[in-house]
Amino acid sequence: MEHEITQLNSVDFKEISVQLEDSILHIQFNRPHKKNAMNLALVEEVMQCFTFGANLESLRAVVIVGSEGNFCSGGDISDMHLSSLNESEREETIWHFNRSFGRMITQVKHSPIPVIAAVEGAVLGGGFGLACVADITIASDSAFFALPETGLGVIPAQIAPFVAGRIGIDHTKRLALTGEKLNAEQALHLGLVHRVCSAHSIKDQINNAIKQLKQCAPEANSNTKRLLLGLNNTPLEQILDDAAAAFVRSLSSEEGIEGTKAFMQKRKPSWCE
Amino acid sequence: MEHEITQLNSVDFKEISVQLEDSILHIQFNRPHKKNAMNLALVEEVMQCFTFGANLESLRAVVIVGSEGNFCSGGDISDMHLSSLNESEREETIWHFNRSFGRMITQVKHSPIPVIAAVEGAVLGGGFGLACVADITIASDSAFFALPETGLGVIPAQIAPFVAGRIGIDHTKRLALTGEKLNAEQALHLGLVHRVCSAHSIKDQINNAIKQLKQCAPEANSNTKRLLLGLNNTPLEQILDDAAAAFVRSLSSEEGIEGTKAFMQKRKPSWCE
Amino acid sequence: MEHEITQLNSVDFKEISVQLEDSILHIQFNRPHKKNAMNLALVEEVMQCFTFGANLESLRAVVIVGSEGNFCSGGDISDMHLSSLNESEREETIWHFNRSFGRMITQVKHSPIPVIAAVEGAVLGGGFGLACVADITIASDSAFFALPETGLGVIPAQIAPFVAGRIGIDHTKRLALTGEKLNAEQALHLGLVHRVCSAHSIKDQINNAIKQLKQCAPEANSNTKRLLLGLNNTPLEQILDDAAAAFVRSLSSEEGIEGTKAFMQKRKPSWCE
Repeated sequence: MEHEITQLNSVDFKEISVQLEDSILHIQFNRPHKKNAMNLALVEEVMQCFTFGANLESLRAVVIVGSEGNFCSGGDISDMHLSSLNESEREETIWHFNRSFGRMITQVKHSPIPVIAAVEGAVLGGGFGLACVADITIASDSAFFALPETGLGVIPAQIAPFVAGRIGIDHTKRLALTGEKLNAEQALHLGLVHRVCSAHSIKDQINNAIKQLKQCAPEANSNTKRLLLGLNNTPLEQILDDAAAAFVRSLSSEEGIEGTKAFMQKRKPSWCE
Repeated sequence: MEHEITQLNSVDFKEISVQLEDSILHIQFNRPHKKNAMNLALVEEVMQCFTFGANLESLRAVVIVGSEGNFCSGGDISDMHLSSLNESEREETIWHFNRSFGRMITQVKHSPIPVIAAVEGAVLGGGFGLACVADITIASDSAFFALPETGLGVIPAQIAPFVAGRIGIDHTKRLALTGEKLNAEQALHLGLVHRVCSAHSIKDQINNAIKQLKQCAPEANSNTKRLLLGLNNTPLEQILDDAAAAFVRSLSSEEGIEGTKAFMQKRKPSWCE
Repeated sequence: MEHEITQLNSVDFKEISVQLEDSILHIQFNRPHKKNAMNLALVEEVMQCFTFGANLESLRAVVIVGSEGNFCSGGDISDMHLSSLNESEREETIWHFNRSFGRMITQVKHSPIPVIAAVEGAVLGGGFGLACVADITIASDSAFFALPETGLGVIPAQIAPFVAGRIGIDHTKRLALTGEKLNAEQALHLGLVHRVCSAHSIKDQINNAIKQLKQCAPEANSNTKRLLLGLNNTPLEQILDDAAAAFVRSLSSEEGIEGTKAFMQKRKPSWCE
């Protein structure tokens, strides 16, 4: 384990900074000169982190933040060096780049480890999409949100489905067709973010969220997340039958035994720090 | 009919108190020493009431309330006497207990008779789930809501799908992964409850809700409920074709004829008291 | 094109007034003596307009408004002259009338051209349904919303599914079972409408919405709308694969080339007026 942690903390990452501390994996975007617009390397590095995190038993949460006042301004297509390619290569490259976004957002959404995103400044396009799949999203009051794609003549292809998953199809449609900007309070009203705070208290809010997550048992959290994310794909009666079996397993698991015991003994269970 | 009513008012119920008055069936949880935590007997008694109510033609609404300041603090697993069982009996017993919750919540959700829940104090776990399937949910400002399961090392197996049906998958996920408590105003903001009032005006709010329901025709209400609860299971075009046929039937039904006539004669239709 | 425009501006419409100006199609309901209750002719005229608009390349938005202080009070069944029909003719006529509502609402919802609805006064039944499928809905503070069908003994057959698409099944259910009236602020809270303003500033709000829509590329908007409205019918992975291909096409389209160029040259793209 120590070895793996050292690997992750290594200087192998170019576009993000990564730190593992107290069972929390911190990912910071590291392209402030581009307002953290995502190039392919950044997307792939984020995916590496989540693949790593999913296999790290002791991990309790992943925290994603921006840098220098902005969360993420979308996709950085200027970084793709398309001019040297012929048309079919160009199309393939763009397809791959675009589809990678969707793959990353999908991976973050289905992360078995809870994900906290703390956003500030620009939260645009792909950054907006990412904010919509975190389990807990905290916004600085400096944050503003928009889907600027149609204003550039393109479509929010990999992002729209995830925004719709968070705020519904109709609000997503309106924002995509108008490019309208939302401030943090409006985002809170739509359920896009869950807490709004001043820029200087964002660390406190992240720590509060971590503290809340740590009250809850890691395996139970992971199973609950899977249950909820699977709701749209299976008939309800089957979900409830399977969920009853999962409940039986959770109650007889180490966590369930410890949690019930701790409750009766009026003490905190072992997974709370 | 009178006979059946008398049956229901009988002392056969142990865990709930039941009263039928003015075409309204009142169910009150009767385990205040356990903050109305639900044991298997309570769950089964609630189901009996709804089975009874579904066949009682004159019934206009079911009202569910807690007692002594709390609505319901979840499932009462301590009541299951598991210690005397061997492992496989134990697992079967727990599965059955857990699955029964889901069956009760499903039955309440699909009740052809409109359901009002008035909640106060603890609205936790299964109580939270039940609050999410009532057609009209009224909260005293003393109410607080949480999904405490993962904090005990278990999962909100039978409850999460119904909470997600009410407030969406993402809010449910956040509440389940953190155990975060909501107050009544926050529950109103999420659409979990529809009205918030002071503890002493909760009866007035229940009566207002009953009055509103009684303005609407019973069969039309029942058909509308079925139409809406079936939306996710059928292609839209087929729903609309079937709904047009149901409209034709409703317009030529006794209710439709009476309703249209009353409207033209500027008087209240017969089903309003 | 000019010819077609002239056709649309003709006096052929009886129940609505239609005007095409600056690439915007304005539809005004023209039955103020009935609070703009919709008869079959009105429904069919609206559908004609949308069929026309879908083929008019230069069109950028459709705006729907009421008249004399009301948006639309629902369906006008009194206009159907049912008394002269035998029972089976009568049933067929009602079925056709009812189903036509659903067809119109479906067509408006899936319009490739963005739709703005500006509502005031009565927004009832079918008017409520229509308000729920516009991409941008603006409400005067005089607006009130209700589903009065069950109070008349009938069901909101063609409307409920579209209201549920906007504000969710549970809020729709509650409104349909109680006939409860919402004011404009409550409608804003539910996401039913997107902006509330005073009656005298409604034109400004419409113009603002048009201005926003015109910042966005027409084809990109149309493709984004189709992507979002198709979300519930296709597995997510297939949607994302197809969306990546659509992104490639949009980036190499005239719009995508112009949009990217304009962004780099810090000027407005050609589709903004």
